[in-house]
Amino acid sequence: MSKKRVVIAGMGFGGLQAAKVLANGTIDLIMIDRNNYHLFQPLLYQVATAGLEQEAIAYPLRGLTRRWQGASFTLAEISGIDLDTRCVFTDSGKVPYDYLVIAAGSRTNFFGMQSVAANAFDLKRLDQAEDLRNHILMMFEQATREPDQKRRAAMLTFMIVGGGPTGVEFAGALRELIVYVLSQDYPAISATETRIILVEAADSLLTAMPVELRQYACRKLYSMGVEVLLESRVVGATAESVELADGLVIAAHTLFWSAGVAAAELADFISGVERSTSGRIVVQPDLSIKEHPEVFVVGDMAYCLDNEVPLPMMAPVANQQGDYAARMILAREQGKSLPPFHYADKGSMATIGRSSAVATAAGFKISGYIAWLAWLLLHLYYLIGFRNRMVVMMNWTYAYWFQERQVRLITAKKRRAGCLQ
Amino acid sequence: MSKKRVVIAGMGFGGLQAAKVLANGTIDLIMIDRNNYHLFQPLLYQVATAGLEQEAIAYPLRGLTRRWQGASFTLAEISGIDLDTRCVFTDSGKVPYDYLVIAAGSRTNFFGMQSVAANAFDLKRLDQAEDLRNHILMMFEQATREPDQKRRAAMLTFMIVGGGPTGVEFAGALRELIVYVLSQDYPAISATETRIILVEAADSLLTAMPVELRQYACRKLYSMGVEVLLESRVVGATAESVELADGLVIAAHTLFWSAGVAAAELADFISGVERSTSGRIVVQPDLSIKEHPEVFVVGDMAYCLDNEVPLPMMAPVANQQGDYAARMILAREQGKSLPPFHYADKGSMATIGRSSAVATAAGFKISGYIAWLAWLLLHLYYLIGFRNRMVVMMNWTYAYWFQERQVRLITAKKRRAGCLQ
Repeated sequence: MSKKRVVIAGMGFGGLQAAKVLANGTIDLIMIDRNNYHLFQPLLYQVATAGLEQEAIAYPLRGLTRRWQGASFTLAEISGIDLDTRCVFTDSGKVPYDYLVIAAGSRTNFFGMQSVAANAFDLKRLDQAEDLRNHILMMFEQATREPDQKRRAAMLTFMIVGGGPTGVEFAGALRELIVYVLSQDYPAISATETRIILVEAADSLLTAMPVELRQYACRKLYSMGVEVLLESRVVGATAESVELADGLVIAAHTLFWSAGVAAAELADFISGVERSTSGRIVVQPDLSIKEHPEVFVVGDMAYCLDNEVPLPMMAPVANQQGDYAARMILAREQGKSLPPFHYADKGSMATIGRSSAVATAAGFKISGYIAWLAWLLLHLYYLIGFRNRMVVMMNWTYAYWFQERQVRLITAKKRRAGCLQ
Repeated sequence: MSKKRVVIAGMGFGGLQAAKVLANGTIDLIMIDRNNYHLFQPLLYQVATAGLEQEAIAYPLRGLTRRWQGASFTLAEISGIDLDTRCVFTDSGKVPYDYLVIAAGSRTNFFGMQSVAANAFDLKRLDQAEDLRNHILMMFEQATREPDQKRRAAMLTFMIVGGGPTGVEFAGALRELIVYVLSQDYPAISATETRIILVEAADSLLTAMPVELRQYACRKLYSMGVEVLLESRVVGATAESVELADGLVIAAHTLFWSAGVAAAELADFISGVERSTSGRIVVQPDLSIKEHPEVFVVGDMAYCLDNEVPLPMMAPVANQQGDYAARMILAREQGKSLPPFHYADKGSMATIGRSSAVATAAGFKISGYIAWLAWLLLHLYYLIGFRNRMVVMMNWTYAYWFQERQVRLITAKKRRAGCLQ
C-alpha cells in the first residue's frame, strides 16, 4: 500500500505544527508556502521599530524540513484548490492530495475603506516591517530639516489604529524608540514634540483581557506619553492626514493599521465552502470542511465555534488546531477518530514597554515586571532556531542595558547603475 | 572668531576616519551621506552568500555622530560641487564650506559593456547583496523543479568575474554555502551538479599578493571544487549566458562582476578637476585638488601617486587618507602643515574558506589556519559597534560548528494588498 499524501497549504504556526506531527515517515508530506521561511509574526512590530533585524524572526523552512522523513517543501503561490478533484493549483504546477490542511493565515482587513488601505501601513510580512521602519526614520530625517512648523508636527505625529495586542505593543515600542533613541539621534527634535495617538473603537484597550489589566495597559501607555483615543473610529486617510468618524481630521504622515484581519485571499479561491465573518471558512467540530472530511482548515482561516463562541485569530489557536488536524489524519489512517477540537486557553499577554507587560495564565492576572519577564521568555521559547534566539536575546539585552536600538537603518531601495565609461 | 566649517561628502572608510579626527569641538563639521548608515563593504559578500544579515555590517551614522562635538549629519544625495563658490549642492539644499573632504567612494566599472552591466550582479550596496542572495537561492528553488537538464545545469552554474579579493572570497563562500548547506536543503541537487567558474584576465588570482600566496589560493579553490579560468575575459552576457573573449559561451543564469571599479558618479559632477584612470580625481601630494588647497579627495575617488605608483582602491588607503586630510585641515588652522601623504602598507589578506586564508603583513607571508584566524579577528576589530561584532561573531561561530547558514531567506518583495471586503 502506497503512502497517503498530505498537502499543507501555508507554513505559519498552524501549518508548521501540523507538519511536525505528520513528518513521521508514514505520510507523503508536501508543504507549500509562498515564502521559503517561517515568519514569527508576533515580533514583526519590533522589526518595524528598529529593535530587531528581520532575519532574526524568520527561519528557513528547508532548514527545518530537511530532517523530516517523507517530507518535501515547495516554494509556490497557490492559485486555487479544487475540492472535488482533490487538487491544489500553484504557480509551479498542480499538486493532488489525499488529505489537505489549509493554513494560509490572514491578511489585514480595511473594511472597505479604500483611502485607508492606500495610505496605512500594516504588518503581515517582513518587507512591510522594513518599509514601516524606513518610513518612521525618514519622518525624523525630514522633520529635522522642515522649516514649516505645521508640516513638521504632522511628520512627528504617529497614528495607530486598533487597541489589540499589536497596536498596544507597537505604540509602546515606538514611544520607547523615540524617547530613548531618536531624541538622542536628532538633537533638534524633542520627544515632547512627537505625538503617538492610539485609536480604538471599543471603550478600552486589550478587550480580551480582564478589566484590571486593560486599565493597567491604558495607564501605563498614558504615563509613557501615548495618547489613547477610545470609542473612536478612523474613517478615511490621505498620505498626510487621518479622519475620524466624528469629523476630526488629524494631520499625521504615519498611519499604522492593526484594527482588523480577514482570512487570507486563498479562501476566495476555494469554491463551494461556507464562509463567515472576515471571510473565514466555517469548519466542522473536527476542523474539516462539510462534506470534505479529507480537508481541514486551521488557524486564522478557520471559523471554528468552541462552546458556541468563535475562536480568536491568534497563534496559540492556530498551533493547537494544526496539531489536532495532523493527529486526526493519522488517527483516520488507523481507522480511528478523535473527539471534537477544543481550544485549551493558556492565557494571553501583551508587552507595553520596558519592564512592563500584562498577562493572564491559569486564572492568574499579572502585570508589570514579572509579566514582562514571562513575555520575554515565552517569545524566546517559541522562536525557532538557536541562532535566532541568541540574536533576539542579544538585541533585547543590548536595548535594555544601553537603551539603544541599532537596527535603525533606512534601507529604502534606490537603484543606481555602475559605470559604463 | 567663528569656527571654520568642514563638509565631508561620503561616510565610508575615508569620510568616517576624517570625521573622527575633526570632531574635536574646534570645527563646525557637517557630514553628508546618501544612506543613514556606514557600510562595512568588505563583508558584503557574506551577506550575499547567506552568512550574515545585512544589519550586522551597517552602523547608523547618527548613533556614532551624536556623541561628537560640533558635528552634524545630513542624509542627502549630492548633486554637484562648485569649487569656486565653495558650495556643495544636495537634494535637501546647498551647503557652503570652508574645507571640503570628498570621500564618495567608488562604483562598479563594466568598461562599457552594456550587456554585462544589464545582466551581472555587483556588490556595492546592501540591497545588492540581498538581491544576489535572493537570486542564488531562487536558482536552487527553480533548478529543483526544472525538468530540462540543460536549463537546470545553467541555473546551477555561477560565473564570477575578477580574481581579486572580492571574487576569491565570494567564490569560496558560495562553494561552501552549496556544499555544506544547500546540498542538504535540496536533496534532489548534488553539489557535483553545480559549477562555480572564476574568470580572471591576468595569469593568476590575487595579483597584488606574493606568488606563493597566489598559488595557494588557486590550489585551495580548485580543491574546493571552484573552476578557475585564468587569462580569460568576459565580453558579453544575457540573463542566461556569458560570453568569453575567445568566443566560448557558457550557459549560466548567474554572473557576478567584481572585475573593476571606478570613482563614484559624484566625480562627474565636479567641473574643473583633472581626472585619471577609472575617473579618479588627481590629487596633489597633500591629497588636495590643484589650485584648491581647501578641497581634499580621499579613498577610492582619489588618484594618488605614492613613490610614483598610484595607490590601490582599498579600505586601508581610504582610512589613512581620511586621517591625513583631517589632520592637515587642523594643522592649517594652526598655521602649520604636514609632510606629503605616504601610505603605510600594513599588508593585505583574503579568506578562501573554512580555516583557509592568505595574508601578508610586515614582510611575512602566511596562509592557512593562522591567516584565517587573523582575517576573522581583524574584520571583527574593524567592524563598528559592539552589537554588530557580537552578531557577526555568533554567525561565524555558528557556521563553523554547525556548518549552517541561517540567513538563507528569499526576501524578494511581492506587494500584496490587504482585504477591502
